[in-house]
Amino acid sequence: MTKPEKIAPTITTGALPASRKIHIPGTLHEIRVPLREIAVSNEAALAVYDSSGPYTDPAAHIDIARGLADVRGTWALARGDVAPYAGRAVLPADNGFATGARLTPAFPHQRDPLRATGGRAVTQLAYARAGIITPEMEFVAIRENEGRLAAPIRDGEAFGASLPDLVTPEFVRAEIAAGRAIIPANINHRELEPMIIGRNFKVKINANIGNSAVTSSMEEEVEKMVWAIRWGADTVMDLSTGRNIHNIRDWIIRNAPVPIGTVPLYQALEKVGGIAEDLTWEIFRDTLIEQAEQGVDYFTIHAGVRLHMIPMTARRVTGIVSRGGSIMAKWCLHHHRESFLYERFDEICDIMRAYDVSFSLGDGLRPGSIADANDEAQFAELRTLGELTRIAWAKDCQVMIEGPGHVPMHKIKANMDEQLKHCHEAPFYTLGPLTTDIAPGYDHITSAIGAAMIGWFGTAMLCYVTPKEHLGLPDRDDVKTGVITYKLAAHAADLAKGHPGAQRRDDALSRARFEFRWEDQFNLGLDPDTARAMHDETMPAEAHKVAHFCSMCGPKFCSMRISHDIRAEAERQQGMASMAEKFREGGALYVPAPATEPAQ
Amino acid sequence: MTKPEKIAPTITTGALPASRKIHIPGTLHEIRVPLREIAVSNEAALAVYDSSGPYTDPAAHIDIARGLADVRGTWALARGDVAPYAGRAVLPADNGFATGARLTPAFPHQRDPLRATGGRAVTQLAYARAGIITPEMEFVAIRENEGRLAAPIRDGEAFGASLPDLVTPEFVRAEIAAGRAIIPANINHRELEPMIIGRNFKVKINANIGNSAVTSSMEEEVEKMVWAIRWGADTVMDLSTGRNIHNIRDWIIRNAPVPIGTVPLYQALEKVGGIAEDLTWEIFRDTLIEQAEQGVDYFTIHAGVRLHMIPMTARRVTGIVSRGGSIMAKWCLHHHRESFLYERFDEICDIMRAYDVSFSLGDGLRPGSIADANDEAQFAELRTLGELTRIAWAKDCQVMIEGPGHVPMHKIKANMDEQLKHCHEAPFYTLGPLTTDIAPGYDHITSAIGAAMIGWFGTAMLCYVTPKEHLGLPDRDDVKTGVITYKLAAHAADLAKGHPGAQRRDDALSRARFEFRWEDQFNLGLDPDTARAMHDETMPAEAHKVAHFCSMCGPKFCSMRISHDIRAEAERQQGMASMAEKFREGGALYVPAPATEPAQ
Repeated sequence: MTKPEKIAPTITTGALPASRKIHIPGTLHEIRVPLREIAVSNEAALAVYDSSGPYTDPAAHIDIARGLADVRGTWALARGDVAPYAGRAVLPADNGFATGARLTPAFPHQRDPLRATGGRAVTQLAYARAGIITPEMEFVAIRENEGRLAAPIRDGEAFGASLPDLVTPEFVRAEIAAGRAIIPANINHRELEPMIIGRNFKVKINANIGNSAVTSSMEEEVEKMVWAIRWGADTVMDLSTGRNIHNIRDWIIRNAPVPIGTVPLYQALEKVGGIAEDLTWEIFRDTLIEQAEQGVDYFTIHAGVRLHMIPMTARRVTGIVSRGGSIMAKWCLHHHRESFLYERFDEICDIMRAYDVSFSLGDGLRPGSIADANDEAQFAELRTLGELTRIAWAKDCQVMIEGPGHVPMHKIKANMDEQLKHCHEAPFYTLGPLTTDIAPGYDHITSAIGAAMIGWFGTAMLCYVTPKEHLGLPDRDDVKTGVITYKLAAHAADLAKGHPGAQRRDDALSRARFEFRWEDQFNLGLDPDTARAMHDETMPAEAHKVAHFCSMCGPKFCSMRISHDIRAEAERQQGMASMAEKFREGGALYVPAPATEPAQ
Repeated sequence: MTKPEKIAPTITTGALPASRKIHIPGTLHEIRVPLREIAVSNEAALAVYDSSGPYTDPAAHIDIARGLADVRGTWALARGDVAPYAGRAVLPADNGFATGARLTPAFPHQRDPLRATGGRAVTQLAYARAGIITPEMEFVAIRENEGRLAAPIRDGEAFGASLPDLVTPEFVRAEIAAGRAIIPANINHRELEPMIIGRNFKVKINANIGNSAVTSSMEEEVEKMVWAIRWGADTVMDLSTGRNIHNIRDWIIRNAPVPIGTVPLYQALEKVGGIAEDLTWEIFRDTLIEQAEQGVDYFTIHAGVRLHMIPMTARRVTGIVSRGGSIMAKWCLHHHRESFLYERFDEICDIMRAYDVSFSLGDGLRPGSIADANDEAQFAELRTLGELTRIAWAKDCQVMIEGPGHVPMHKIKANMDEQLKHCHEAPFYTLGPLTTDIAPGYDHITSAIGAAMIGWFGTAMLCYVTPKEHLGLPDRDDVKTGVITYKLAAHAADLAKGHPGAQRRDDALSRARFEFRWEDQFNLGLDPDTARAMHDETMPAEAHKVAHFCSMCGPKFCSMRISHDIRAEAERQQGMASMAEKFREGGALYVPAPATEPAQ
């Protein structure tokens, strides 16, 4: 077993057990697409999707004060439609007026930000529409195939999704051009390993991190991100509030191989001392530019909360549970007017397209309880998000749509159907949903049920929920539990949709299980360390990892051992195939074949 | 917070936090039906289903050497169709020839077993068909209503299930008469608090316990049972192998308020030294009588594994994964004939009906991997189980049907549909199913996804899976995690089916959440202790349990606090209702109303 190492001093590095990093080169572009190859003891190694970045590559030199390598700068500059500029000066308010020892140091290596020239849209959507296959598109195409050369298994119910045997760069381009998928990839996030979010691709998951008013150094926040992607988070949202937001975000992005999302409203609110009514378009706009220059890949924008919808929440059991939604609702009500997010949406688009920041249109009125699911307020906002999607698309901006929340199982499908209908197939990105309210402490599970289902129905990305949801701030173990839980939910969704590559890993693991290859069983699982530790609690001896039964049931009661005996016995007798024919209905005792039926 | 106490020395007793035991009397019979009433700080107390028995009743005197009170003996004797008899003598083989210090002491208070007289069927099915409402039927009717007098909410998709507003004793009788539900209640399990399993009732869960070859005293096994029902297990299966099976089972049943299920084949196999081929009908039959006299409420019988089906498993990835199924398959193949379970099925029925032991017809050929789901072998056996159901019903025996296993989401519904079709609506009892194979260590979650879905579709009871599945023997924490996980899955299923009482608890908890009543939120949850502990990790101070925000987000970012502000603000302005009208589409910016539409 490979022990993860800590550096700097808190960053987790090192390969996962039995795993090595491999890279597949592009054919259109000079790119190297990372995958994780899991060694299997008596089969071919299995390559799997790998979100963990260079941290799991022993050949990579990690120094968080330098950040990850700049891989995308040349891609952006080669397109000839962007230019570096001086950028906005960092203001004391950006870090909550922290000074001296309380101020997180600025990231030491600052680059001038890139921005579109001449008012151009430098988005993946603009390129896709222009017929251009970018390096980002080829990268995600290779990545999605996980080293497969064929589609071994086609089985599933895709609910209208269209999953190709193998993803080609052209397929990626066409999906982006249609608005059905996005590659969140700010031109200033040059360290990014691009990934794609869309229902015709693998279901993705997001993990939330973020410092709060009192805690966390920049090292801790970088480590949270590294830890989340180690276990499979495809994107990470930095939901920091409090001081030092700007500087900590810089440290995160410069060290992040995955897209980073934020809710810019949180920082804007900090800048006005937490008084929602004091928010202004100018402060918000300045915050968007600040974060776009840093390289944030997607922004949650709660532009769908409109004045007339707020009274629709009056009779709800849990009112408005989205932080951004409640802040904007308060602003609207106080000023008695539509929000600046809605009124200035076209200006927001102009900023987004200049850096290729993707929209994640926030569901500010999502239900916070079973009682409030699928209500008037929720679906009214969803229709507005659909209108905003068209506006953003007209500006060549990439868009995904956020969804709930708390929804009982029988109301989940309607969420997907309504979203597809009103939001024109823009990717859906949901939080869970939780399928019951009665299990605080276990909401990673109540929500994994909903997440697996809505992922099956077509949701492109699932925002994780940790065991601490509703109760407290997740620690390291909670983050891992949340990520693994959502990885298994996303994979269950891929299987059910009939993703042609998904079942390979299940089959490899099940073969290992049937053949008593314990080490392979651990290594092929989502969390080899936990599986091994649980096994060793009951059966610590090395002998138990090679024996053809285990001490759980013992040899007499081991169904798999007996199955092997049965196969051997059957083959000795005469071969299974002819037996099947011979015994078919042979000994029917209670349901004899009708006398009129000819004997076989 | 009420601390659970340990007695004897390992039995957990004491009420759950803020809870007290209440009893509702019958009107037809002299019965007292226990419920758990949860106190809520500013609302009426909420009564909930309570499987935990007298262990959570501070008024009860617990002495495991005496066992629980005999509540059902008079019910059985009053019917005039049973009589006590000397019963079978305990043989050394019954306890695996354990002697001296290795022999678990016999339970000290032995009663003569009861048995039907004159070859009668003394089953709940026989009484139901005769139009008799038994005390057991009235008991479960009251229990299912959870103290409700009305059905506050009707919402859901029931897939053909028929859930009444309130369950009446006559409804119970009719469901049992139709074979759609069972009350597993051996006449010799006099300590039982009856419960019902059927798709028109609340979804139930089972927890497995059992000693293995080396471990466990009788106290430990009794405690495992008590611990499992404390958290909500509705039935408990004793899957013991090894020595002392007979005596430990006696201790469990005499102290069990829930139905106890077993797989008699396991003990029979021990009696022949673990050599499957040496099993005989005589040994098996003797084991059935031994366990029926003790009071086992349901037997898993793998009578559906037929000779011609065995070759169908040849090309499976994981062969036969049911222990009972593999043992019987080996026997069949060795002797080249149908199993004695199949050939002697009518004789088995004669034993079952004399004690009212319910059948749980085992799925010996269930799939053990995603690759094997819904295959020929599985569905061939299911059809045989349907045939056997009719035979058992003809003998007035109660029947439920066991189901898989490992099934991807898109193949789950077919399992339920096939079961309903081929097994004539006999209750379905499934193990999960697991929706992917790739997460060893997290199979309580991979399976909770499938369990919630199949419960929604109509499965009546869900057999839990613990985090240690495939890896080792569950410990106390694993048992609790498995039980809570399955309780939330069963509840999610009840909500989605539209069980008329289910949402009461979600709503009560969500109201508490919205009103910052932290203590109520913990107490109304499935696991108050864990919720409280998680909360206290982040916010230990008592002040945090009363403040109208919490330190997770702080007051500025607390959506629920802001929601309250919004309500107050809106009410100040003019009342929500008129606002809704006033603002409706008022400020449409991008989608102006058509000019032809009259202004409102």
